[in-house]
Amino acid sequence: MKLARIGDAGAERPVVVTAEGYRDLSALTDDITGEFLAEGGLDRVRAALSAGELPLVDGSDQRVGAPIARPSAIICIGMNYAAHAAESGSAPPEVPILFLKTPNTVAGPHDVARIPRKSTKTDWEVELAVVIGKRASYLESPAQSLEHIAGFTIANDLSEREWQLEISGGQWSKGKSAPGFTPLGPWLVTPDEARYQDLRLTSHVNGEPRQDSRTSDLIFGVDELVYQLSQWMTLEPGDLVLTGTPEGVALSGRFPYLKAGDVVELEIEGLGTQRQEFVDA
Amino acid sequence: MKLARIGDAGAERPVVVTAEGYRDLSALTDDITGEFLAEGGLDRVRAALSAGELPLVDGSDQRVGAPIARPSAIICIGMNYAAHAAESGSAPPEVPILFLKTPNTVAGPHDVARIPRKSTKTDWEVELAVVIGKRASYLESPAQSLEHIAGFTIANDLSEREWQLEISGGQWSKGKSAPGFTPLGPWLVTPDEARYQDLRLTSHVNGEPRQDSRTSDLIFGVDELVYQLSQWMTLEPGDLVLTGTPEGVALSGRFPYLKAGDVVELEIEGLGTQRQEFVDA
Repeated sequence: MKLARIGDAGAERPVVVTAEGYRDLSALTDDITGEFLAEGGLDRVRAALSAGELPLVDGSDQRVGAPIARPSAIICIGMNYAAHAAESGSAPPEVPILFLKTPNTVAGPHDVARIPRKSTKTDWEVELAVVIGKRASYLESPAQSLEHIAGFTIANDLSEREWQLEISGGQWSKGKSAPGFTPLGPWLVTPDEARYQDLRLTSHVNGEPRQDSRTSDLIFGVDELVYQLSQWMTLEPGDLVLTGTPEGVALSGRFPYLKAGDVVELEIEGLGTQRQEFVDA
Repeated sequence: MKLARIGDAGAERPVVVTAEGYRDLSALTDDITGEFLAEGGLDRVRAALSAGELPLVDGSDQRVGAPIARPSAIICIGMNYAAHAAESGSAPPEVPILFLKTPNTVAGPHDVARIPRKSTKTDWEVELAVVIGKRASYLESPAQSLEHIAGFTIANDLSEREWQLEISGGQWSKGKSAPGFTPLGPWLVTPDEARYQDLRLTSHVNGEPRQDSRTSDLIFGVDELVYQLSQWMTLEPGDLVLTGTPEGVALSGRFPYLKAGDVVELEIEGLGTQRQEFVDA
């Protein structure tokens, strides 16, 4: 099952994506929130869909928003692909590296993206994003993780490398939290439809290939991450876990940083595509 | 003016603290949220208070909650007192060091505090916390900061040092986001009543002095911080900026880390006191 939110920013309507088109979820919920996910919302959507109760809605000319309302936290995992750690000049970690972005960075998957003022090193990062569906605290094993996951989507973990690395005192969040720095979506795809252990993920800039890897190359996989994170913090319904990015970013020195006019396209197998045109803020 | 939230966790009632006691704000707002602050809520409280429209409420036996509802972000400044940077083994920063805690760490100022499971290095940090009152993005100068500030309160930026520093890959957030790790309050004190440029702040553990400094020793002061942060991110109404902690924490090696049964007391001049008894999670 694929859920989405369509309409103007801040006024999105929740829908389910079917072969016939979008079907309206407004009768079930105002929005796709953590509370909705935690209270069995996905089961209600599934039942209503089976019962043929959800009307088609014409969304062909509507903006696609992020597939969930604003999370309470965006938890990011750093250096979680060995080849990306190497291109960043780091050894692969022995424990997951955790940092945070502010939740107000979330944007729609095709929204215009803004290069922050005074930025010279804005970079892309395609990532598999996990959407938490049920509060997770002190899980006992990775086998418990899946029942706390609502689904998966694509995130572009946009990064300003000077702010992240050169004027940061070593703390990355400064270069991760600029307005619109987390394009998300297009869909929330439930686990039964997302073979998340092994999905191809790619990025292109102006049509040229940049990243091309598989989630099977993650050092710490999804189940292991949710389990480990739950030892250090409580994951709330609707929260995002960004699982890390593979090699092929500008930080490597092999490609130029982004400038106004550039177009970034991201894809993860089965999760759809993103496309952002960049402008100066 | 001093605002507070009293009652059980998750069901707090907003009040204003006066010489006669708590006065109920329920007729003005359901809660002290970012939206309430951004829409002139403090002016409405001031007017209703002057007009004698706010009834007294007996809160003598009620829990005190954090003085604002859950923020969208908790933005922390690291190494912002020179002597604390030195005790942590670091040089004073030339640019503010920014990291984040998850918003679900906020707790009441006197709530029982939990030492996370498997923690051996839980530490205290008294900090002046700024509450944002109006969205701040790309401010033009530090002189603009004050109009974006709703007020001030006390934060205990609880920290697990092994998770923050030893198994973190250098990113501090892992040791900053355990459940209840941001005791906040007791009051939101408006800028006209808080001489925030020079307030004494102290911490005690089991009655013994630990930290004792003044906000005039901040390397980057409040106005400078809000201005600089607004270049890298958008500060939302209701967000918290934790301005950094002075020397005198366990990380220095001079004091033991916290254990079950310990009592931490914090005070900032004019902003009230906090007291937490620690238990094992």
